[in-house]
Amino acid sequence: MNTNPTIDGQRLLQRIAEFAAIGATPAGGVNRQALSLEDRMARRRLAELAVARGFCVYQDAIANLFIRRDGRAPSLSPVLIGSHLDSQPTGGRFDGALGTLSAFEVLESLEDAGAVTERPVEVACWTNEEGSRFFPGCMGSMAFVGAGDISGWQETDGADGTKLADELQATLTALPEVEMRPVGHSVAAFIELHIEQGPVLERANVPIGIVTAVQGTKWLQVSLTGEAAHAGTTPPAYRRDPLAAAVEAIASLQQAVMPADPSARLTVGRMIVEPGSINVVPERVTLTLDLRHPEKEVLAAIEARAGTECRAAARRHRVEVSIEKRFDMAPGKFDASVVEAIANACGRLDIPTMKMVSGAFHDALFLSRVAPAAMIFVPCRDGISHNEAEFVSPQNIEIGARVLYETVRELAG
Amino acid sequence: MNTNPTIDGQRLLQRIAEFAAIGATPAGGVNRQALSLEDRMARRRLAELAVARGFCVYQDAIANLFIRRDGRAPSLSPVLIGSHLDSQPTGGRFDGALGTLSAFEVLESLEDAGAVTERPVEVACWTNEEGSRFFPGCMGSMAFVGAGDISGWQETDGADGTKLADELQATLTALPEVEMRPVGHSVAAFIELHIEQGPVLERANVPIGIVTAVQGTKWLQVSLTGEAAHAGTTPPAYRRDPLAAAVEAIASLQQAVMPADPSARLTVGRMIVEPGSINVVPERVTLTLDLRHPEKEVLAAIEARAGTECRAAARRHRVEVSIEKRFDMAPGKFDASVVEAIANACGRLDIPTMKMVSGAFHDALFLSRVAPAAMIFVPCRDGISHNEAEFVSPQNIEIGARVLYETVRELAG
Repeated sequence: MNTNPTIDGQRLLQRIAEFAAIGATPAGGVNRQALSLEDRMARRRLAELAVARGFCVYQDAIANLFIRRDGRAPSLSPVLIGSHLDSQPTGGRFDGALGTLSAFEVLESLEDAGAVTERPVEVACWTNEEGSRFFPGCMGSMAFVGAGDISGWQETDGADGTKLADELQATLTALPEVEMRPVGHSVAAFIELHIEQGPVLERANVPIGIVTAVQGTKWLQVSLTGEAAHAGTTPPAYRRDPLAAAVEAIASLQQAVMPADPSARLTVGRMIVEPGSINVVPERVTLTLDLRHPEKEVLAAIEARAGTECRAAARRHRVEVSIEKRFDMAPGKFDASVVEAIANACGRLDIPTMKMVSGAFHDALFLSRVAPAAMIFVPCRDGISHNEAEFVSPQNIEIGARVLYETVRELAG
Repeated sequence: MNTNPTIDGQRLLQRIAEFAAIGATPAGGVNRQALSLEDRMARRRLAELAVARGFCVYQDAIANLFIRRDGRAPSLSPVLIGSHLDSQPTGGRFDGALGTLSAFEVLESLEDAGAVTERPVEVACWTNEEGSRFFPGCMGSMAFVGAGDISGWQETDGADGTKLADELQATLTALPEVEMRPVGHSVAAFIELHIEQGPVLERANVPIGIVTAVQGTKWLQVSLTGEAAHAGTTPPAYRRDPLAAAVEAIASLQQAVMPADPSARLTVGRMIVEPGSINVVPERVTLTLDLRHPEKEVLAAIEARAGTECRAAARRHRVEVSIEKRFDMAPGKFDASVVEAIANACGRLDIPTMKMVSGAFHDALFLSRVAPAAMIFVPCRDGISHNEAEFVSPQNIEIGARVLYETVRELAG
């Protein structure tokens, strides 16, 4: 690697350890759910660090937190970098925190180097990305891009019985000295560093994934209802077996969808068979389909195919079928110029990369609707995330932050 | 129908109603589990009715109850008829009781007609056919034919915390005046009248099924273990999806087994998917296979095929598989001469019949190991059994009892 100014890897690793202590779980993970006391403590610590370095700190009505280092032309829209600080209830120490703290490290490193950028550089810490305490996730980034309705969320009940409005207010007043900003502002580019949350980079032994798109996701719930019957005394002609229909439909979909298209994802994660007795033909099967694809039209075709297969199998087995769409997130394409800037940065640093599609949603998906955006992935051990065992090697943390720094230098001018 | 002496339909229907009151449930069914207070009350009532008609009553060490009407040659082995009086916890009023009370009706009708048979005729009321309170079912008939070990069952715990030994003793002492008999004796023929517990006769609109065999049954539990993974971020090549393997194996078995052989039965009644989250590739799938066939060799081939399909699918999806046999009951063939006697009786009575294989087990399956045996089925509404909604039409009850009477007259000489 070259010897140009870069980030301070030791400082970043210490910061990650320091923040992992806020909401630390006995098993080495983090419980720092959105707008909780722990979340507020983490935000406060980050704001303190920012003020200590002379950066400006802002928050908005949905409690997104921004840390700004001005550029030569303060009127230009900023290059925005960052992620989130909230976690799953038994989350890992890297999901979100890695991107937020690496972004802050970039700001500090620019300051250390006395770098003067053309554009301001801002760290964004988005509120409630995880969505496990308050539904939906990505609230902060959705609100920022105008895709979500803050006032409509006010009455949202938390999984722990709290109200979003109360916890949001408490979070905002926990930083009374921080200046309020309107929700949403012009952005020159957004870059989010994140752990991959999958096994691809690790197995390919590549330290950096340049994310060009986020898969669209559709969740379907399929209910098949037949008639419970004695397994011994009921001949095939008199059966209305919803499980027989379900396995045919899924097996057929499996053959049709994934082998034909390497970008397609089809998962049956849940299947409930009732009454569930060894010698009774089931009365009802309820199953879920998680369908993903980076192309909106292809995803729609997979959804249509799923409906066709389920209805055809239901007809063959004389069972009722109903299909309910539970979730529908359109795919997102990242910006070619930001993707190229990341690739150029990696080229300059001589770091191997792989272009990839994100299988999970991220705040960057929403940001991409209003600004040129892209993501940088680093490998996580065994692809494990949303789990206290989540782990990223110090080496890959440092590589990720260097790539972010180098990309920001290019984009901020 | 002819006008020869026959059974008293009204008396039989009243008896069925009277016994249905012993352990009656609010929903119109019966809870008269084996060796319970209700079971003892029903046995006592039957013994009282028998004594009142001058028949001899016996019981044996497993509490099988016998009612004997002597023939011209008391030394000849008896024609045995009957079924059981115990029920499922939420059982119907006909399963078992119909066959027992019809058999007693035959004895009374012979007495009414002053008929003198060559052989004695005995009603058997077998202990614990259902097996829901004390495992296994068919204890009485198994013990009678030497297939079960009474002393080995003594420590059996009941589903309600009781001990078999205590409840058995209490049942025997509830009929102190009844003479004890050794377990098992020579039998000229055994005929069991029972409800079909399936939909075939009703849908074919045929009042009598002549049962030529009982299917063999094998219960397998298949566990497939892969690796939980994120549905969005895990490409097919890195998945070890046990549900994908399970549906392929079952779909393939469904195509191979039932359409090719009308006597084969394949049922997946239970399937548990863990962890069961919509966006997580499952880690483990546990499913059951209920396999049935009247031919032992064919059933063994189906079992082998099931193993092959499961292992092949597991290999394709790189998951672990284990297959455990939970139950294995060999098929039983009924005796051609008894089947013919039933068919002749129906012919004389001008009653339409259908030869069929029993999908459920019955005491007659065990009796067929030591004596010529067969069964007579009558239709039950919608094929429903083991359910308080179980129903047999008065007309079909009467037809079934007439056929039994006519068959006994032929076999007892």
